[in-house]
Amino acid sequence: MQKTLQELADYLGGTVIGDSATLISGLAGLDDAKQGDISFLANPKYAAKVATTKATAVVLPPGAARHGLQAIEMANPYLGFAKLLTLFTARPRPVLGIMPGAHVVADAIIGAEASVYPGAYIGSGARIGARVTIHPGATVYAGVHLGDDVILHANVCVREGCRIGNRVTIHNNTTIGSDGFGYAPDGDGHYKIPQIGIVIIEDDVEIGANVAIDRAALAATRIGRGSKIDNLVQIAHNCVIGENCIIVSQVGISGSTKLGSRVTLGGQVGTAGHLEIGDNVTIAGRGGVMSSVPSNGIYSGLPLQPHRDWLRTMAVIPKLPELKKAFADLEKRLTDLETQGTSEQGSRTP
Amino acid sequence: MQKTLQELADYLGGTVIGDSATLISGLAGLDDAKQGDISFLANPKYAAKVATTKATAVVLPPGAARHGLQAIEMANPYLGFAKLLTLFTARPRPVLGIMPGAHVVADAIIGAEASVYPGAYIGSGARIGARVTIHPGATVYAGVHLGDDVILHANVCVREGCRIGNRVTIHNNTTIGSDGFGYAPDGDGHYKIPQIGIVIIEDDVEIGANVAIDRAALAATRIGRGSKIDNLVQIAHNCVIGENCIIVSQVGISGSTKLGSRVTLGGQVGTAGHLEIGDNVTIAGRGGVMSSVPSNGIYSGLPLQPHRDWLRTMAVIPKLPELKKAFADLEKRLTDLETQGTSEQGSRTP
Amino acid sequence: MQKTLQELADYLGGTVIGDSATLISGLAGLDDAKQGDISFLANPKYAAKVATTKATAVVLPPGAARHGLQAIEMANPYLGFAKLLTLFTARPRPVLGIMPGAHVVADAIIGAEASVYPGAYIGSGARIGARVTIHPGATVYAGVHLGDDVILHANVCVREGCRIGNRVTIHNNTTIGSDGFGYAPDGDGHYKIPQIGIVIIEDDVEIGANVAIDRAALAATRIGRGSKIDNLVQIAHNCVIGENCIIVSQVGISGSTKLGSRVTLGGQVGTAGHLEIGDNVTIAGRGGVMSSVPSNGIYSGLPLQPHRDWLRTMAVIPKLPELKKAFADLEKRLTDLETQGTSEQGSRTP
Repeated sequence: MQKTLQELADYLGGTVIGDSATLISGLAGLDDAKQGDISFLANPKYAAKVATTKATAVVLPPGAARHGLQAIEMANPYLGFAKLLTLFTARPRPVLGIMPGAHVVADAIIGAEASVYPGAYIGSGARIGARVTIHPGATVYAGVHLGDDVILHANVCVREGCRIGNRVTIHNNTTIGSDGFGYAPDGDGHYKIPQIGIVIIEDDVEIGANVAIDRAALAATRIGRGSKIDNLVQIAHNCVIGENCIIVSQVGISGSTKLGSRVTLGGQVGTAGHLEIGDNVTIAGRGGVMSSVPSNGIYSGLPLQPHRDWLRTMAVIPKLPELKKAFADLEKRLTDLETQGTSEQGSRTP
Repeated sequence: MQKTLQELADYLGGTVIGDSATLISGLAGLDDAKQGDISFLANPKYAAKVATTKATAVVLPPGAARHGLQAIEMANPYLGFAKLLTLFTARPRPVLGIMPGAHVVADAIIGAEASVYPGAYIGSGARIGARVTIHPGATVYAGVHLGDDVILHANVCVREGCRIGNRVTIHNNTTIGSDGFGYAPDGDGHYKIPQIGIVIIEDDVEIGANVAIDRAALAATRIGRGSKIDNLVQIAHNCVIGENCIIVSQVGISGSTKLGSRVTLGGQVGTAGHLEIGDNVTIAGRGGVMSSVPSNGIYSGLPLQPHRDWLRTMAVIPKLPELKKAFADLEKRLTDLETQGTSEQGSRTP
Repeated sequence: MQKTLQELADYLGGTVIGDSATLISGLAGLDDAKQGDISFLANPKYAAKVATTKATAVVLPPGAARHGLQAIEMANPYLGFAKLLTLFTARPRPVLGIMPGAHVVADAIIGAEASVYPGAYIGSGARIGARVTIHPGATVYAGVHLGDDVILHANVCVREGCRIGNRVTIHNNTTIGSDGFGYAPDGDGHYKIPQIGIVIIEDDVEIGANVAIDRAALAATRIGRGSKIDNLVQIAHNCVIGENCIIVSQVGISGSTKLGSRVTLGGQVGTAGHLEIGDNVTIAGRGGVMSSVPSNGIYSGLPLQPHRDWLRTMAVIPKLPELKKAFADLEKRLTDLETQGTSEQGSRTP
């Protein structure tokens, strides 16, 4: 594939500085690029490499030195890199139809240009959008709706009646819509509360591998538009995740908790149930969220603290043994002083 | 479906207060109920809503004000709600037999009224009880026994020779009986210790999605009757889980650890191996269990503490930086006092 | 099966003490062994049981009292036990070929003596070694290479183009090569960075159930020779795991982190990304690794500390409330002393 610099600038929404007819045939980092490649400067600390790279062109923030290279200026060169990588590596999606060995119940509706692999199962009453790919061993239970351009990787399960929007990708062995964990105490035992809600996943969501998202008890567990969920995450019943959230691996979100938009939860974060985390909140990795968190802010730790305060707390924790010992020393010095005062008084009294 | 209030009271084991012939056709919360519905009062703080609900009848604790509604009195109205929800939402399980595309080895024994979906696999010598449902892509290895009324959701794997009781439900992508994690040091490397035990799951257990329960090294990893396990839980080899335990999502239980009955482990709890947790113990979320815990009690934290003590500890943790600073101030004041005493003494001595 | 003591000693690399022609027909612990069995003494604290066991022979460390039993001496009797267990329990692997119901794309290359179960899928261009077993529902995507003697358990997924060495076993529902979690900020949303690398798993690796190992963004996520990975572990994109590492259940390793050789990560350990952990490092369970760790050492906690220091820290944590109170008492005593000094001074001045 060859593109002119102008074509790439148009694709990126950037501005050509130099010869817009320059032909570009590949993409590489500043160190690895060769003649004909385009590279990018995302981090100012590597600016000097622009002078020595063998790339023909470079994507730069406005005003950065281009050292004689052809250039595309744009505000976010890292986004430019991601978009160019997509352009140079994307391969056409094959349209394979319903392949022999796929199990599709007769009344399911499959959209145009779908690919359903052998061993995939699509249940009764399911409605599958256009250009969907369902890999081997994926199971779409009865009554599920999938939007257009959905990809279900091998062994994904989407349970009864769940709703998945457009351009959603779900990676392998992920479960959408298993029963929420709800029981009523019944003597020594536990009586199962039927979980008759669903999961709704909005457009442009991506979900990693081996994730579990439970169906609601009554209404819907919801994953908002554009949110991205990493591997091995637990989202319990009735949770509502806002738009464009980032949920990193091994996070656990307890039942009925609501996240606003643009919330980031770092790896292994856990939250209690029935609480709210406001918009634009970041919880750093391993944080434990025990109560609601207002919008805007970065928090860490268990108990949760503003991140800067938590850093100070973390600095003290390893010093606790010496602090305890210093405290004991201090107490001894104080007792000595008290005793001395008394004995001085005593010596003075007579 | 319509039921008389008396029929519902008989089903719930409660007592009708009012007109036992009243016909009930649905179930809803106090706020959402309409004419013909039954509702419930589980939490006393919502008692005032009984006066304003549009429900025809309400399930109440004995003696609660019914504000003129038809009522069923029972000790545990929340359990009543769960049972009514089951009654009003349960759908008959279809009996589908061994469907085309299911892979059943010839010598497996399948009980009456089973449903085995396309893409499910049942290995040699497996014995499957009556009214079992095996969803697409579930794999039952050779020699496995499943009791009656078992449900294996899509892509569940039950490994060689494991034993599963009656009325057990296992959600998607869960693994029962993978090899325990056991190696003998062998120079720089690790020699695998064969894991020749099994997993035994007793009656009335429910297991969530993406759970891993390892087979024992020699005998059996055991999950006791009536226990409920949430998503993404790890139970290592040789563990014994007692009866009616509740294991919340992302818990990890290390090898050979034993839980008594009615133990609750909150989300993300971890335990060391080869320890015992007594009956009726609750470990709150994220707790770390490093040594055995006697019966009865609520514990939290790492190190583990009685929950009330842990709350006090948690109150101090964020104040450690100021405590450290206050300590330094105190030391300075003490030093001043000591110095002052010395100089006073000095000034007095001559 | 019967073996002479000499045959067993040769197999173990040990030395017979006693009658090398003694016939051995089974293996059991010292308490359970019967006539004809061989047992083993791995832990010196059980040495007295050698005098009372009913075993015919025993594997011992050099010089241990054999109390009249036939014996094999070797430096590591626990390794001897593991090897004997393998010998006495191993069953021949059946060679089943590509079974009816397996989905193998025409251009895939399958090695000699393979077993491919019904419902397994092998994609275009895949190359599968000799004596490989692919269980039901396992999915091998296009272009994957598997070495010899690989076992993929049911519902394992190996994604596009990944490379797996010889003698690798992967347990159920594990995902190898799902997309790394990489996005470039794009206004309020997140633009997906294509993940065009692969996963390389070297020889003699074993991976547990429900594990997720992400493909690299550009090059390869790598699992070194002989490493063992437990259930529900997350390994993010671009990570490099050295040789003979032990990664216990529910560990999460963030992107681009590198582990040396013989690293052990205990259960639920989490690491930040882009850091290095040196050779022979052990991180105890639940440890949080926020920065690089040099070779050799045992660490615990969050923040991470040398294990012995962490034990001291853990001893103080539960005492923080009383320490805080003692501090307040001390401050009061000091204030009293200061006041007293002033009043004494005051009383002296006039």
